[in-house]
Amino acid sequence: MTKKIILKTLYEKKDEYVPLEELVNETGKSQKEVEIEFDTLEDEGYIINHSKLGYRLIKTPNLLLPYEVKKGLKTKFMGKDIHYFKEVDSTNDVAKYLAENGAEEGTVVVAEIQNRGKGRMGKTWISPPGGVWMSIILRPDIPTSKAPQLTLVTGVAVAETLKKELNLDVGIKWPNDILIGNKKVCGILTEVNANINKINYVIVGIGIDMNVDVPLLPPDLQEGATSLKNELDTEINGAILVQKFLLNLEKLYNQFTSGKFPDILNEWRFLSKTIGRKVEVRTRGKTIRGDAIGINKDGILILELDDGSLRKIISGECLHINTS
Amino acid sequence: MTKKIILKTLYEKKDEYVPLEELVNETGKSQKEVEIEFDTLEDEGYIINHSKLGYRLIKTPNLLLPYEVKKGLKTKFMGKDIHYFKEVDSTNDVAKYLAENGAEEGTVVVAEIQNRGKGRMGKTWISPPGGVWMSIILRPDIPTSKAPQLTLVTGVAVAETLKKELNLDVGIKWPNDILIGNKKVCGILTEVNANINKINYVIVGIGIDMNVDVPLLPPDLQEGATSLKNELDTEINGAILVQKFLLNLEKLYNQFTSGKFPDILNEWRFLSKTIGRKVEVRTRGKTIRGDAIGINKDGILILELDDGSLRKIISGECLHINTS
Repeated sequence: MTKKIILKTLYEKKDEYVPLEELVNETGKSQKEVEIEFDTLEDEGYIINHSKLGYRLIKTPNLLLPYEVKKGLKTKFMGKDIHYFKEVDSTNDVAKYLAENGAEEGTVVVAEIQNRGKGRMGKTWISPPGGVWMSIILRPDIPTSKAPQLTLVTGVAVAETLKKELNLDVGIKWPNDILIGNKKVCGILTEVNANINKINYVIVGIGIDMNVDVPLLPPDLQEGATSLKNELDTEINGAILVQKFLLNLEKLYNQFTSGKFPDILNEWRFLSKTIGRKVEVRTRGKTIRGDAIGINKDGILILELDDGSLRKIISGECLHINTS
Repeated sequence: MTKKIILKTLYEKKDEYVPLEELVNETGKSQKEVEIEFDTLEDEGYIINHSKLGYRLIKTPNLLLPYEVKKGLKTKFMGKDIHYFKEVDSTNDVAKYLAENGAEEGTVVVAEIQNRGKGRMGKTWISPPGGVWMSIILRPDIPTSKAPQLTLVTGVAVAETLKKELNLDVGIKWPNDILIGNKKVCGILTEVNANINKINYVIVGIGIDMNVDVPLLPPDLQEGATSLKNELDTEINGAILVQKFLLNLEKLYNQFTSGKFPDILNEWRFLSKTIGRKVEVRTRGKTIRGDAIGINKDGILILELDDGSLRKIISGECLHINTS
């Protein structure tokens, strides 16, 4: 709270020195306590000029610090509570812990680094500095069977945000990899905790390779991966991107919970880079090849095999095959 | 030719009177012959002021007169030869006759009124004044089996043109009805003349209810139909619309003949108002209901029935069912 007041004051008096006495007044803390807060801020990466005139904010770190994300956040509930970690094993696991302990819908867990980030199908998600490693707690009042639809909703939210804000050739590879061109820039992992008929909570995990340096990824991932920074040749402001994403997600989530999933699915179809492609899907040890011709109302992929037969694919890892 | 030179001269000297002698000089015809041409022009609907200073063009009729369409036409071959009729039984039939007699690819037949306009499935196409009733002769060097794809290509060309030029909520109902909102504004009828392995010619017939007054259509069609004029509350310039359409069609046709049908099909999917809808398809006396979930690489519609089974629909009449 003290930190928040200090930052608010420094932002309001941008380009001016703020005397220590004023900060003491604003916060109601002692000189010593205010000075300690400044040490913390500098640890977090804020660059602050200190002279006999007082304190002046020179530069904000490009990190997903709660104060920075919330500052421009226009949502009603999404991201109103943000738990920030410099380093964590898995943001999904932290979110799960918070959800078990009553955290509210819309609570966000974010970390600069994940040491054991989780991907789909039991894979590891490599999470070096510069990415958006984020998990969101949702508590939708929907049948348990519909929870997987949230993965598609989240995919649309990410893809729309990147497309609109950054004007990139963004698309979705079924079920929910976000691509730029044909390279992956974001993965989504949805975990559901539910009884037979009731969802307790859903954790939506999102990993966006925002300002990640692609050459720092493991060699076997480099060819198929990209980052926003890599595509645009410039560093992206993470706090602003996350604000836009959370707003978009809240809008789509509200549509979803009010029964408008078909509209979102049509948007998914529009963003899909899989439909119309020849694909290979690995599912439970089997590999199936065919033309991806559509998805049904539950998000199940429909393949047409070479013999003309049709096949439903509920889950699996999908590869786009080049035919040209 | 004389008429073309006269019109060209009048357009070049817009807002000026052109002396009769100048037109005699330009055309190399006699005074009498030039005067007769002016009678023809006035019959066609041009309004021309005649004083002792000469002739002045006041108003061009909003008709698909060859000179008017060709004036701003930027195509290489589409619409370079235009056969115009005030009234005809069926532009497709005239086009067939011309094709049989060696007419070149891109030849266009257009009429202000069709007395026996043809629709899909043996139906009549009502063709009152104000519409674009047009047939185009194509001679693609493709296997006969791929000819039906041209229907989808044409559908995309019409939909894209209306969407881009008029900024309307345009979409395609499978296989090739063009809708604004949920009302039909255009139908397409493709007729193929082919041997087993060789296409002789394809006639693509297009009917757009451009400036048609909807209340003048037969009562049973009025509810499901609209016109551009009806939607925009203003008269559309037909010559300009047809120029844009022919240019767009030529571009897509060139893509098609160079093997890029999959890209066009993706555009079709994007424009589709059928995919994602509950539909009822009437095909060969049977009626099938289901969710339209996609189309395959040949343009065949894929339905998911209530029992979860998948069904291919090769042809038929498709109704969108309201579920909300």
